[in-house]
Amino acid sequence: MTQKTSQAYAANSAGKALEKINTQLPTLGDEQVRIKVHYCGICHSDLSMINNEWGLSAYPLIAGHEVAGEIVEVGSKVNKHDIGDLVGLGWHADYCEQCRSCDNGDHNLCSKAIGTIVQRHGGFSEYVQASQTSVVGLPEGLDLKSVGPMFCGGITVFNPLVQYDIKPTDKVAVIGIGGLGHLAVQFLSAWGCEVTAFTSSDNKADEAKKMGAHHVINSKDAAQIESVQGQFDLIISTVNVKLDWNLYMTTLQPKGRLHFVGATLEPLDIGAFSLISGQKSISGSPVGSPDTIKTMLEFANQHKIQPMVEMFPMSKINDALAHLKSGKARYRIVLQADF
Amino acid sequence: MTQKTSQAYAANSAGKALEKINTQLPTLGDEQVRIKVHYCGICHSDLSMINNEWGLSAYPLIAGHEVAGEIVEVGSKVNKHDIGDLVGLGWHADYCEQCRSCDNGDHNLCSKAIGTIVQRHGGFSEYVQASQTSVVGLPEGLDLKSVGPMFCGGITVFNPLVQYDIKPTDKVAVIGIGGLGHLAVQFLSAWGCEVTAFTSSDNKADEAKKMGAHHVINSKDAAQIESVQGQFDLIISTVNVKLDWNLYMTTLQPKGRLHFVGATLEPLDIGAFSLISGQKSISGSPVGSPDTIKTMLEFANQHKIQPMVEMFPMSKINDALAHLKSGKARYRIVLQADF
Repeated sequence: MTQKTSQAYAANSAGKALEKINTQLPTLGDEQVRIKVHYCGICHSDLSMINNEWGLSAYPLIAGHEVAGEIVEVGSKVNKHDIGDLVGLGWHADYCEQCRSCDNGDHNLCSKAIGTIVQRHGGFSEYVQASQTSVVGLPEGLDLKSVGPMFCGGITVFNPLVQYDIKPTDKVAVIGIGGLGHLAVQFLSAWGCEVTAFTSSDNKADEAKKMGAHHVINSKDAAQIESVQGQFDLIISTVNVKLDWNLYMTTLQPKGRLHFVGATLEPLDIGAFSLISGQKSISGSPVGSPDTIKTMLEFANQHKIQPMVEMFPMSKINDALAHLKSGKARYRIVLQADF
Repeated sequence: MTQKTSQAYAANSAGKALEKINTQLPTLGDEQVRIKVHYCGICHSDLSMINNEWGLSAYPLIAGHEVAGEIVEVGSKVNKHDIGDLVGLGWHADYCEQCRSCDNGDHNLCSKAIGTIVQRHGGFSEYVQASQTSVVGLPEGLDLKSVGPMFCGGITVFNPLVQYDIKPTDKVAVIGIGGLGHLAVQFLSAWGCEVTAFTSSDNKADEAKKMGAHHVINSKDAAQIESVQGQFDLIISTVNVKLDWNLYMTTLQPKGRLHFVGATLEPLDIGAFSLISGQKSISGSPVGSPDTIKTMLEFANQHKIQPMVEMFPMSKINDALAHLKSGKARYRIVLQADF
């Protein structure tokens, strides 16, 4: 049966409370699948899009790009998924599949990739559609309720471990223990690394250790940061505030890397000599490819890694967004569809 | 016979013309070798040290760290070299040989490494001594007269090719065709890469092509730079002026790297989002390890790569320094000892 309409929660203009609407669904493409949304995580970039912080938003805007659900319809050429499959959908809903990045499996770097909530409708909805390539099936054993955040927050911090060939013998650190950071700590601990968590919230220290951090450092205390000079092979920064990056550079070992998955718009302000003298790198990355998402889900399943989530019914989405804005979410909010 | 004194050209204070002096040689250490200097290249960092730009200088200062010469004396525990060996000496004259970097062969990243001209005397001299580990023997066939610049300028641009596993299929660029850049172009061309040279001097374009550049771009022409967006896997910047780094970032392919071997003291001013969206890196490196220097010399010998040099007798060292300062050196100045 072809689904023609969907209920959804939409922003009608920047910064306004979301309202429940009934929206027309686009005709399903030959290579697309339609997903009935069971759960959808809330990511900070949903807020950024709702508020048009990046100038990319089209209203009414239906955000949501950490979808966990069930395929209810497939296009005529779909061969990777079947009706009834449990799947997830993240930041990208389509790729050009013609460029070098797509050709070599780096779909996440495709410059023509389509964002799930950019100029199209996302997962704060009954139904959402996406290209079959962008949708990833869930391995048996993963918890449907909490898996959504893996598809954006999770893959964003898992991808660098694959890209940079991080070794279990590496000493690593995570800056910011939130939606992304709490998954980064779990992944890196399961990866075999010695893990240090930098957090500005003392009350997260015990939880960070339960997630697998071996050491916790208060990121507001410069003396504590100075005490770990020359320690880390890799630091993943998940925060979107400006920190003293040159100070963090001193905590890297020779050949160490400071990697950004979160950022502010202002320049990084890092001195070239701090790169040159110890052969250090600064880098960044967005989400990962569908293949890396599969690898992540298998690894998470193997190691019993899952997002720590707070559940809200989707009908309480405005309360959920307020909770996210308050900074009190521990550690990711997931909406349960209750249309 | 133990050599007790050496004639040399010394700066007696910052910015002054060098004067010929007679200096006492230190007692040779058990693991040191003494080299009779035949030739010594001049590097920009000799000027920086003569002028105490980095606050590291001790006067009288004898600069010179691109030495080509002959071993005339060996310490009692020296087992890597013999009297009569033709060798070179670069930026480092000793390493701690106790740290992790030394243990794993990255002597060049040893934080206790001793600079050849930092608080000790370098190669603008009849004799210079150094630890046996820091001195590298010359493969037969290399030209003694022009090989000195390989030991600082050469290894500085060769090392990144080894460190970052650059492939012959990579598309690469070099910013600045001077003492370092003219060697970078030769190395990268012999490496099999498609090479683009960025230079602000139109009159270097033909020579850059003779060195092996396939394309030459005027670095003062933003439109030309914009025309190569998304092209490069690696850019090596050899310049010590501030350029529009964010513009150069756009010329990198996804996963591309902008690598600094030259730099200014001011911060790099690069936006984090330009790293994140294409998974790009910024990095830097100093000179290479003795083992990498050996590899470079073998590669240079195999591919007939050598510095393009202008010769001055060492007695004309002040003229040579003035020529370097004028920016007209093509492409490296080498002094011939004529004491």
